[in-house]
Amino acid sequence: MFARSFVHQSSRQVSRHGSWVCNPHRAARGSLLLRTYASSANAPLAEKFAVNGDRLWEDIHYTAQWSAPSPGGLTRLCATEHDKHARDWFRDQVLALGADYKVNATGTQFAVFPGEDSSIAPIAMGSHLDSVATGGKFDGPLGVIGGLEVIRSMKEQGVKTRAPLVLINWTNEEGARFFPLLGSSIVYAGQSTVAEAHASLSNDHSGITMGSELAKIGYVGDGPNTFQEFPISAHFEIHVEQSTDLEKAGKPVGWVEGWQGMTWYSLELTGEDGHANTYKMYGRRDALQGAAKIITAVEALAYKHNGDSTVTNIISGPWGACNIQSNTKVSFCLMHKEAEGQLAMGSDIEKQIKGIAALHGLELKLKRDIYVPPGDFWPEAIDCVKRACGDKGIGSRTGTGHDSTMTTTLVPTAMVFVRAKDGISHSAKEWSDKDDCTEGALALGKAVLNFDELMKTKK
Amino acid sequence: MFARSFVHQSSRQVSRHGSWVCNPHRAARGSLLLRTYASSANAPLAEKFAVNGDRLWEDIHYTAQWSAPSPGGLTRLCATEHDKHARDWFRDQVLALGADYKVNATGTQFAVFPGEDSSIAPIAMGSHLDSVATGGKFDGPLGVIGGLEVIRSMKEQGVKTRAPLVLINWTNEEGARFFPLLGSSIVYAGQSTVAEAHASLSNDHSGITMGSELAKIGYVGDGPNTFQEFPISAHFEIHVEQSTDLEKAGKPVGWVEGWQGMTWYSLELTGEDGHANTYKMYGRRDALQGAAKIITAVEALAYKHNGDSTVTNIISGPWGACNIQSNTKVSFCLMHKEAEGQLAMGSDIEKQIKGIAALHGLELKLKRDIYVPPGDFWPEAIDCVKRACGDKGIGSRTGTGHDSTMTTTLVPTAMVFVRAKDGISHSAKEWSDKDDCTEGALALGKAVLNFDELMKTKK
Repeated sequence: MFARSFVHQSSRQVSRHGSWVCNPHRAARGSLLLRTYASSANAPLAEKFAVNGDRLWEDIHYTAQWSAPSPGGLTRLCATEHDKHARDWFRDQVLALGADYKVNATGTQFAVFPGEDSSIAPIAMGSHLDSVATGGKFDGPLGVIGGLEVIRSMKEQGVKTRAPLVLINWTNEEGARFFPLLGSSIVYAGQSTVAEAHASLSNDHSGITMGSELAKIGYVGDGPNTFQEFPISAHFEIHVEQSTDLEKAGKPVGWVEGWQGMTWYSLELTGEDGHANTYKMYGRRDALQGAAKIITAVEALAYKHNGDSTVTNIISGPWGACNIQSNTKVSFCLMHKEAEGQLAMGSDIEKQIKGIAALHGLELKLKRDIYVPPGDFWPEAIDCVKRACGDKGIGSRTGTGHDSTMTTTLVPTAMVFVRAKDGISHSAKEWSDKDDCTEGALALGKAVLNFDELMKTKK
Repeated sequence: MFARSFVHQSSRQVSRHGSWVCNPHRAARGSLLLRTYASSANAPLAEKFAVNGDRLWEDIHYTAQWSAPSPGGLTRLCATEHDKHARDWFRDQVLALGADYKVNATGTQFAVFPGEDSSIAPIAMGSHLDSVATGGKFDGPLGVIGGLEVIRSMKEQGVKTRAPLVLINWTNEEGARFFPLLGSSIVYAGQSTVAEAHASLSNDHSGITMGSELAKIGYVGDGPNTFQEFPISAHFEIHVEQSTDLEKAGKPVGWVEGWQGMTWYSLELTGEDGHANTYKMYGRRDALQGAAKIITAVEALAYKHNGDSTVTNIISGPWGACNIQSNTKVSFCLMHKEAEGQLAMGSDIEKQIKGIAALHGLELKLKRDIYVPPGDFWPEAIDCVKRACGDKGIGSRTGTGHDSTMTTTLVPTAMVFVRAKDGISHSAKEWSDKDDCTEGALALGKAVLNFDELMKTKK
């Protein structure tokens, strides 16, 4: 089976606690495929394909009602009641379209639509309906609802692919409520387990887990959890750009060629309890003072190495108005376009953190939770998106991780970017125009049809 | 009435949001009283008085069972179930001793025991049974249970004062669960209101209030809330020293002459939401980066001004692994032995905070919540404690606030310090030996008897 043949060529492995293993033959092989199958024209079915931009736009805004209060934005944290509403709505839509529907143990929803040949693994379109705490209406939902629009339009237009299609709503891509991120696609990619995902702890340190919260909303299902159980042939995803390359180029869409390197760290500093008023300064073991110096160092690190960095979480205790802080936890991420720079940032900050902890007499637990070196999507998949975009697009790169960053370890994967106003994301101000969303969904549908055609030539 | 006459000489006023108002005549008048009434001998009743150290020690440890898990220490946060257990126990003990018992609207428990002359306002002994999150068994409980031991011993020995006595368990002295601190004694002193105390918010930013939590455990009563409703003649309190002066001098007890200056600030920084991975560094409005620089500045400030400082709380959001922190709240306190130094620290850090907020493009809300300049307890009350301590004690000063810091704005107040191992406090390691606790309770009882005698000579 086609998808399987790609699996064996999978070039990388990502680990929650380790690093990618790169296959030096990968790029060369990809180029070969590209030379073999690339064409500047779209597949015949793709040439005629159209989507309904009004319906897409209405559903993006209709579903945004399922949110905690967030004027203009979206706060639909994973496994909340709001998330349940959006999931139920998704289920109803795909069932109405005749999907073979499953929910897996990490809550991910799969809606399979038959093609002409059910022996082929389906081509996937996927993203996530859950959001960050201060999210916009587009990061995530555009990918899922855009895919839904593609399915609906294909039905209406009698467009039938040879391969089946599967629309996927992945769980906890953001890691906003539960850490680590890519909570379900990482299990699908075989880099983590259902048990680990279920044990993902809430970032508010309340001790609740993703597994228990998914169970509460009735989204622990018996559907497939891994690629081995349910292989796909490829994965395509529309996403807002979260940067300004398209905006500057005056283009509504883009094909995403790859991603920058990203490393997530978490640390815990433990000092000593003491009275806030009566203890002398010298000899204190104040965990929060150590953390403050580390936070400042993480910022300076980005400038020093020409990368980027963000401290994303801090929690410190004991609560109160009259205690020295004896326990402080901090999470941060480092970003760099080049692998060498990313590694240099990591080893630099690790040394600094150890020094600061020692200076303040603090016990340190430091963990590199996730390490993703910079990489490229599959050339044949990129090419399908590139032809789908045509002269409405340019090539771009993503600065962050997506569910596609997991599927690309398995099968041909590429993404469609949609122009985002001022590059703002993870904010209520996140915005893409209706016409740009429409172009994005259209490019997604065409890319899928191009890939289906590509698989025919491969057979 | 005696107490009333002292009220009119009240020398200071503390405000939650303002500053003390000092009466320049206060010190001179205090000295006059001292010259008039001081004597190196204890009152006749005090000379013979004894306490039961075994009973005191057993009750300190017996009541420590009402605590969240805290090996060796005490975690009895205000208005929790653990606090309710301790309060119920206190109620049962004082009722068994025949007290006229009341609970007021802020949960403070008053147990009045008659003297020979019920027209005189009672002499108070008070402290708190609730604790900080990482507390020891002594800070607070020693004061209340020590007072209970004095009452029990007086009963057993047939010692009757002329003034009635009142034993008080004050609510939320620490401000550990609800801010601000001195939660009930500040209302009693007329510097805040019951409504404000009830609205005190939980430090975990969950939005719960002290009023609602006190109601849950059944401790919103109809007893007196203010000095005007229920005047006292004086207030005495035993407390662990929280410093090492007694230990260095080899003395079990001390008379507390005054306190250092303390200022509490809280601030909120508001920046802008954004994606943790995809946003460039320049132009970010990262509230946590601003907060980290402020926290570091608060530490440096102490060394610069020869004072002390502690950052006691931080909370930052939005939660998640993939967002720039757009809202960060920080609380800190500044301590200085001299009023000029304390004010200089405050104005210095206020300027620095404004500069750091501006540098990071952050909106700033900065509030000086509590300002207590250095001050002295009442000489006549100190003298009562000094004579009670005799050659077992030395003079000392406290580095922090107590309920006595509130009552001293109203009536003669002084404190008994008990030697604390290594000066450790607000920690499970907090420790005072049994014999030292016994000496403390004895000094408390003798001080009360000395003051009762002093009031007789005044009449």
